[in-house]
Amino acid sequence: MKLIITKDVQEMNEVGAQQLLGAMHTQYRTNIAITAGSTPKGVYEIMTPLVKNKTYFDNVHYYNFDEIPFKGEEGYGVTMTNLNKLYFDPAAINKEKIHVLDDTNYDGYDDIIANDGGLDFVLLGVGADGHYCGNLPNTTKFGDLTSRVTEDARPDMVDILLSEVGGVEEKRPDFYVTMGPKSIMQIKKLVMIANGKSKAEVVKKLVEGIVTEEFPVTLLTTHPDFTLIVDEEAASLL
Amino acid sequence: MKLIITKDVQEMNEVGAQQLLGAMHTQYRTNIAITAGSTPKGVYEIMTPLVKNKTYFDNVHYYNFDEIPFKGEEGYGVTMTNLNKLYFDPAAINKEKIHVLDDTNYDGYDDIIANDGGLDFVLLGVGADGHYCGNLPNTTKFGDLTSRVTEDARPDMVDILLSEVGGVEEKRPDFYVTMGPKSIMQIKKLVMIANGKSKAEVVKKLVEGIVTEEFPVTLLTTHPDFTLIVDEEAASLL
Amino acid sequence: MKLIITKDVQEMNEVGAQQLLGAMHTQYRTNIAITAGSTPKGVYEIMTPLVKNKTYFDNVHYYNFDEIPFKGEEGYGVTMTNLNKLYFDPAAINKEKIHVLDDTNYDGYDDIIANDGGLDFVLLGVGADGHYCGNLPNTTKFGDLTSRVTEDARPDMVDILLSEVGGVEEKRPDFYVTMGPKSIMQIKKLVMIANGKSKAEVVKKLVEGIVTEEFPVTLLTTHPDFTLIVDEEAASLL
Amino acid sequence: MKLIITKDVQEMNEVGAQQLLGAMHTQYRTNIAITAGSTPKGVYEIMTPLVKNKTYFDNVHYYNFDEIPFKGEEGYGVTMTNLNKLYFDPAAINKEKIHVLDDTNYDGYDDIIANDGGLDFVLLGVGADGHYCGNLPNTTKFGDLTSRVTEDARPDMVDILLSEVGGVEEKRPDFYVTMGPKSIMQIKKLVMIANGKSKAEVVKKLVEGIVTEEFPVTLLTTHPDFTLIVDEEAASLL
Repeated sequence: MKLIITKDVQEMNEVGAQQLLGAMHTQYRTNIAITAGSTPKGVYEIMTPLVKNKTYFDNVHYYNFDEIPFKGEEGYGVTMTNLNKLYFDPAAINKEKIHVLDDTNYDGYDDIIANDGGLDFVLLGVGADGHYCGNLPNTTKFGDLTSRVTEDARPDMVDILLSEVGGVEEKRPDFYVTMGPKSIMQIKKLVMIANGKSKAEVVKKLVEGIVTEEFPVTLLTTHPDFTLIVDEEAASLL
Repeated sequence: MKLIITKDVQEMNEVGAQQLLGAMHTQYRTNIAITAGSTPKGVYEIMTPLVKNKTYFDNVHYYNFDEIPFKGEEGYGVTMTNLNKLYFDPAAINKEKIHVLDDTNYDGYDDIIANDGGLDFVLLGVGADGHYCGNLPNTTKFGDLTSRVTEDARPDMVDILLSEVGGVEEKRPDFYVTMGPKSIMQIKKLVMIANGKSKAEVVKKLVEGIVTEEFPVTLLTTHPDFTLIVDEEAASLL
Repeated sequence: MKLIITKDVQEMNEVGAQQLLGAMHTQYRTNIAITAGSTPKGVYEIMTPLVKNKTYFDNVHYYNFDEIPFKGEEGYGVTMTNLNKLYFDPAAINKEKIHVLDDTNYDGYDDIIANDGGLDFVLLGVGADGHYCGNLPNTTKFGDLTSRVTEDARPDMVDILLSEVGGVEEKRPDFYVTMGPKSIMQIKKLVMIANGKSKAEVVKKLVEGIVTEEFPVTLLTTHPDFTLIVDEEAASLL
Repeated sequence: MKLIITKDVQEMNEVGAQQLLGAMHTQYRTNIAITAGSTPKGVYEIMTPLVKNKTYFDNVHYYNFDEIPFKGEEGYGVTMTNLNKLYFDPAAINKEKIHVLDDTNYDGYDDIIANDGGLDFVLLGVGADGHYCGNLPNTTKFGDLTSRVTEDARPDMVDILLSEVGGVEEKRPDFYVTMGPKSIMQIKKLVMIANGKSKAEVVKKLVEGIVTEEFPVTLLTTHPDFTLIVDEEAASLL
């Protein structure tokens, strides 16, 4: 694991964007997965003008790594809706370059990726509870590939799912899908960003290097090419 | 994980040698770690005439990944003595190309390897109990780098150490050193060989993909480039 | 350039096969181009039993790098006929894994390869005149991609083409197709084999490192990953 | 070759910096060579605040690829003086990470680089005459490694050398040293920047793909990983 401590969130965003752009500047096709959520917002704001209508990034293929469907609705779920808003729409990414994981294809998703040549890069966020993608404690196991997690996985999962769809009960699904720990470990290069005091405990655990399924993100510290970018607040317990 | 099932031990040895030779045929320096023990004997018998006095393999640097010292003796321990006998001596490998891990340098061993450019390849064996290198159940944790394991790690460790030094009590050390799970996971390509019915249960667990510290080798199934070569007997429970 | 001098043809064949097998033992898809002709015969004899019906090589895709059509005939030309006989048929390679270059697709062949992820490895032979693939002196230029070479390229080309189709005038085509020097230089790893006194002058020029279009193969000495395997006779002028 | 056309010099600089930063963000040591001169000035202005005092770039080792000594002076020559001014000094690069090519070590420079693991990346400029590094027409050959070019290489070389040292006759050396075409071709990834109408003819020739020693830079179009970044003016003849 390579640890990068930046002085503030702005520098974390810049370094995250540098890493992402570096992975995109290849001669041939490159496959990258990117995270939705609030943490990467600043990264995508930096990226958008650098990527929009730039044909020299036509070699880049994008993949989402989890999805929470809106119940009773067709079309995009929570993650893709968020990614579209944060990055794909403002950066005008060609839809042909966006490979969507959802509840219709999750079962063969690892094979789809393998057939596409494997993922070269992923930008990840992390939760205070040690989750990344949809790998929350007590939902997936280290050995899981892309999986369907149901509402009975944890007592609080119904509440989590409700919160994810904005508290609208009619839209609450009874499951979500996510690339599993093993799926993420297959990616050639992992980059994770974390900022703020709420992430200080997570960062401390990652640096200490204890690996336990109860804190899922710890597995990633064993990956041969894992970079963790954190601001000073997130590094404050080191 | 890529699974290769061979019809017998001889083919397992040939495929193991093919993988090893492929990793050695590079233009620049390549760093490989190889296993001692009984399983790789046939691989090294194939390798020896192909490697001996061949200057085109001068780019290959070798590393041992564990060592059990003989108590009260200087010089090589159990692993290096075995590797010398099986491969380094018959293949006449230049001692300058052999980088020895022992109890004097284990503490900085991961840094030494990183400074050398990292390991490119490892040939591993596996035990019926799920151990690889010196990572036996209840000795190291998934997050451990190169470590010193002492005789109080497990109730039966004194017996294990005694057995390793041929049952000679005077030579029994009270510890050994080993690259840890995290050290092995940092290597670019992992290749493991296993043969015979005694390994069938291990192979079954690896293919099932449950990852648990109680069966240490299972972590390796999450590595992005892990190949498991087994004969039909070892594959008989699949 | 890495130069490997073997004691005889048999060792050249073994080292050539080691390199080829190394390139084939990958976890995901690997794309390799292999040479027809008399030089690689021994390599393919080693390869055949090691590859035939081995499902663990299903990830390997094959490409031919030149073709001389039989005039008035549909189906395979000189190169593919030869490759089928030497390797694809005896090794029972699945036809779905063989990507055929011929006069119908040469124009977009470099794009086809790029879309397939690029070639990872090529096994090349070399002629006493410094040709490789169909890149004979005064036919292609260093900057050429896959090209169609016509009978008026050189005064002796009609004779060359006649000889290639076994001296049967009715079968003599008025052109052939070949991956060009630039196409070959795009491949990640180049391995060339040469044996016998007739190749000693070529090998000398390659080692001297003069690069000239009049001796086409000399360009390859500038490639970042080029290995030349020669027997002692071919190395006799060094 | 991958061609990137940017709308102006500022975007060329940004994309050049993105490529450079991408090559620097590696987990282990990375070796990069960078160009002096006027073209990269804007790239280094972008780089300086992003790199200065950032310990997460401690893995980056720098190499200069040519040098013109000041006659009768010890210490840095024209290239290193310029690189220090443009980048190494303002970015406060640790001198231990800067590997200097000069007239004392040029003869073994390619071996030094090979021992360091090879160069991973180079940022190049190009002259209107097709030169890159010190590879001017009629000075080096495609097959040359790092070389010493003397004042009698071309009739105008005395004038060129005089101009390079600011027109001060006392400081004019009678030679310079440069990595040769073959040295540059050994590098894993080549990135070249060019802007302005004066470079339009060069860019046209590179895209046309004719490879000739009379226009040295054309060789690089055969490299398996070569990216050319140009502004619209430099692309105006395409």
